[in-house]
Amino acid sequence: MAYRAPVSEYRFVFDHVVGLKQVAATELFAEATAETVEAILSEAGKLCSDVLAPLNRAGDLTPARLENGVVRTSPGFAEGYRAIVEGGWVGMSADPAYGGMGLPISVATAVNEMMGSACLSLQLNPLMTQGQIEALEHHASDAIKEMYIPKLISGEWCGTMNLTEGGAGSDVGALRTRAERNGDGTYAITGQKIFITWADNDFAENVCHLVLARLPDGAPGTRGISLFMVPKFLPKDDGSLGPRNALKVVSLEHKLGLHGSPTAVMAYEGATGWLIGEEHKGMAAMFTMMNNARLGVGMQGVAVAEAAFQKALDYARERKQGKTPLGDGAIIDHADVRRMLAVMKAETFSARAIALACAVAIDMGRATGSAEWQARAALLTPIAKAFGTDIGNEVAQMGVQVHGGMGFIEETGAAQFARDVRVTAIYEGTNGIQAMDLVGRKMMDGGTAAYRLLQEVEDHAREARGAQPDLAGAVWHAAEALREATEWLVAQSANDRNAGAVAYLRAFARVLGAHFHLKAALAEPARLPLAAVAIKRLLPEHQGLIAQMREGAEGLYALSPDLLAL
Amino acid sequence: MAYRAPVSEYRFVFDHVVGLKQVAATELFAEATAETVEAILSEAGKLCSDVLAPLNRAGDLTPARLENGVVRTSPGFAEGYRAIVEGGWVGMSADPAYGGMGLPISVATAVNEMMGSACLSLQLNPLMTQGQIEALEHHASDAIKEMYIPKLISGEWCGTMNLTEGGAGSDVGALRTRAERNGDGTYAITGQKIFITWADNDFAENVCHLVLARLPDGAPGTRGISLFMVPKFLPKDDGSLGPRNALKVVSLEHKLGLHGSPTAVMAYEGATGWLIGEEHKGMAAMFTMMNNARLGVGMQGVAVAEAAFQKALDYARERKQGKTPLGDGAIIDHADVRRMLAVMKAETFSARAIALACAVAIDMGRATGSAEWQARAALLTPIAKAFGTDIGNEVAQMGVQVHGGMGFIEETGAAQFARDVRVTAIYEGTNGIQAMDLVGRKMMDGGTAAYRLLQEVEDHAREARGAQPDLAGAVWHAAEALREATEWLVAQSANDRNAGAVAYLRAFARVLGAHFHLKAALAEPARLPLAAVAIKRLLPEHQGLIAQMREGAEGLYALSPDLLAL
Repeated sequence: MAYRAPVSEYRFVFDHVVGLKQVAATELFAEATAETVEAILSEAGKLCSDVLAPLNRAGDLTPARLENGVVRTSPGFAEGYRAIVEGGWVGMSADPAYGGMGLPISVATAVNEMMGSACLSLQLNPLMTQGQIEALEHHASDAIKEMYIPKLISGEWCGTMNLTEGGAGSDVGALRTRAERNGDGTYAITGQKIFITWADNDFAENVCHLVLARLPDGAPGTRGISLFMVPKFLPKDDGSLGPRNALKVVSLEHKLGLHGSPTAVMAYEGATGWLIGEEHKGMAAMFTMMNNARLGVGMQGVAVAEAAFQKALDYARERKQGKTPLGDGAIIDHADVRRMLAVMKAETFSARAIALACAVAIDMGRATGSAEWQARAALLTPIAKAFGTDIGNEVAQMGVQVHGGMGFIEETGAAQFARDVRVTAIYEGTNGIQAMDLVGRKMMDGGTAAYRLLQEVEDHAREARGAQPDLAGAVWHAAEALREATEWLVAQSANDRNAGAVAYLRAFARVLGAHFHLKAALAEPARLPLAAVAIKRLLPEHQGLIAQMREGAEGLYALSPDLLAL
Repeated sequence: MAYRAPVSEYRFVFDHVVGLKQVAATELFAEATAETVEAILSEAGKLCSDVLAPLNRAGDLTPARLENGVVRTSPGFAEGYRAIVEGGWVGMSADPAYGGMGLPISVATAVNEMMGSACLSLQLNPLMTQGQIEALEHHASDAIKEMYIPKLISGEWCGTMNLTEGGAGSDVGALRTRAERNGDGTYAITGQKIFITWADNDFAENVCHLVLARLPDGAPGTRGISLFMVPKFLPKDDGSLGPRNALKVVSLEHKLGLHGSPTAVMAYEGATGWLIGEEHKGMAAMFTMMNNARLGVGMQGVAVAEAAFQKALDYARERKQGKTPLGDGAIIDHADVRRMLAVMKAETFSARAIALACAVAIDMGRATGSAEWQARAALLTPIAKAFGTDIGNEVAQMGVQVHGGMGFIEETGAAQFARDVRVTAIYEGTNGIQAMDLVGRKMMDGGTAAYRLLQEVEDHAREARGAQPDLAGAVWHAAEALREATEWLVAQSANDRNAGAVAYLRAFARVLGAHFHLKAALAEPARLPLAAVAIKRLLPEHQGLIAQMREGAEGLYALSPDLLAL
């Protein structure tokens, strides 16, 4: 059976779990009424099920390829792209002044999830452009905004991010790409970038590269980096295309997954660029883009988890094998298969709720200017990214397992989900880096934002105690354990914190997931069995994780590289 | 850097952790002296590093293919196969009466690990033949033994197992392949089998298929199944090849990994077969083969874990990125990278020690006839299979993560490990089925074998308390918790046990892994840091697992298929 857009699930999570109502109550997002959101989700869901999902396998089988310097995209991707831009989905959350829909990030994030479930490699294209639009809205000059944003929203032009170089991955500050002042307000960009997602295509008339580079007087490290807009074709003043810029796609990578998404090595050979933001302040602009991109990538994990779950569920309901305890023989009735499906669904719910709670916090921060909401968004972003993509990987692997031997056969499609989603735990900052962000930068407030969130979890658990004493009690105790773990954490050295960062982030996600499941079960009793799976079976994992966190760095460094090599 | 055969690691585990000495003290394996084992491991290690490892990528890039009904193998595989058979490695543990080396399974398992690390898709070929030799040794007539075993050992002929059909995977008893008596002592076999590993090749002159089929008077289910030898070419009395048998390779699968290993659909069209064992008793013969094959597959997981660890370690020692706490900039010095490598190494050690302990139990059971050793082997087999292959998958995925963005690029090789090892958690009985075997068949003694093993773990922890109070105390408490969990488990209904089976198996492996790490640390103080990683960071996971196990089946079945589909 084909992908079914979980439109009613978003409605439920928005209404009963993450509180979209408060977003719609702000002046900025007053138009995001329940009816509008419903209509938008339904429309997007149709696009995803009917138009995009059928492209997924073709993208895998016929990867994008480079022919004489030109990228040829996978069969049907051009049509899929046109359907996305014609629906206005690129500019969902962009400023209406430039042609955007002005929707909350929450709603856009749900739509992005559906597009990612349907065809992750194509979804990456508008996701990149969305990030670029956001960076331009915040940092570009009015002239750049007026020239670029409307064409990015309309899909005539696409956007990319160019950060990584061979020697500068997680350590962006090590980059070597140079920028020279041309004297006419433009800059000449020279250098090589790698891992450039959707660096080129054959369906948009221009590709706009945001490129990090260093000016001659730029300091070493991240403080001396500037951001430039470097388009494939130089636009004339009227927006029509002028000559080709001095940049090219050198090669495409052979990747484990996402074959439909061309990942390129790019060469800039004195290419003309325009400064975005201020000189030497490129990282700040890039961070605007990266923060929301991290949420977007977290939701890619959820997207694949949802798609992999649906496929495994369909298979398990149809496939008969052996006598089952309930007698009818479909493998879904075997206890361990039921367990896998239950865990897949429970984890997908948790990861989605965390991501949408993060999106609501971003919207509230933007709409109200509240520092508390902004701190909440900042805290949740690395959790949404790392947990969402970890769950994407785990659920996709469980999906393969549910299929048994068929899961290893590529025609089944279960393995493609596992291959495609793998990189989401790596790009936009590896999940290890997300965890270090959580225990480092996001705890620079001494844990205030974390304690505030845990207080809400505990308060809710206390209220829920009457209706669901067992589940609420378990959530309360876990939140309390996490509070103590946080108190321990903020008192440690940076390296002890880093050593326990991944375990801490996962424990945090366990508590938040359990909290959102509890909310769901209180709102709708049919959700109680799923909440029980999350709270009774998965939540106890937090204890082992906290124990691991408390071990700190010393024991790890006692294992020297030479001992590891023994 | 290339694969380095961990020969000294095997020696250490044999001498100090799993007690190979007691095997060498039996009459049957008296020739397996320390010197002989050392020489054998070194020789095999050289073959694996120098000859087999260089074939691994070629097998991935140029899959085996079917040309006009003939399987063409990957470049270099024929030469690799010849090197394996010339070294005598196919018949390592086979009866010397037929030309085998008569080595303990323990030693053969270590050699198989090295071959699996070097090139898993080629290693599968002798692994299949080894299983067939064992089945023939136990169940075939003398005439069949004399005809087939020497040629299987010499590598002139290869062996396969034909169990699975489209409607009969985990449920072997549902098979439809028919056998008819020809009246001359032979049988005519008709039916289609799927997922046949190394069903054909272009380097051995004959391929001998062991095929499960049902005679006309065979009862439904597993009780009516018989086992037949169905060779590709019918041998004449003198062992030379006669006419082609009525069987063919219909197609090869496109798989996630193991591209170098042809996986076929096989058609038997009245093919001539010889009965192995008794009519209708085929499952018993197949089980002999499958039990040791399960250990072999568990070791495949360990094999890939070792190879993936070595590759990740090399990368992490060379790759510089960002300032590290220790200053020199190789990413191995980042706390979270060090953590990943430490966990990879600790888990690989645990899984290997469990597998080799299982192998020692098999050898002791065979050499002494002791029912206790046989029960130990039976208990450890599903743990060795499921934990070994789970760890293979987890370590390979961590290996990808250590490589960052490069891990997603196929040329790096990290992703191939993750793809190749994926199926090991599925074939030879999915890991869910292994867990059900552990909590079902292997607990039919009321837990006696489990309690006996846990008693050894506790006794050893008590002895170790003086030297390592923290670590020994943690192991003792965990073993005690597992004993209580086992007491709970054996009192439950089959379905409650099955619902918690996977969690229980993992908790068991956690305790055994910690136990073997403790032994290692006491024998060699340099191993203390690794043991501390296993015992302080990983062992605490057992609590959450036991909590999950105790939830039973009810909560899972409360999540009906319709609720799951909501």
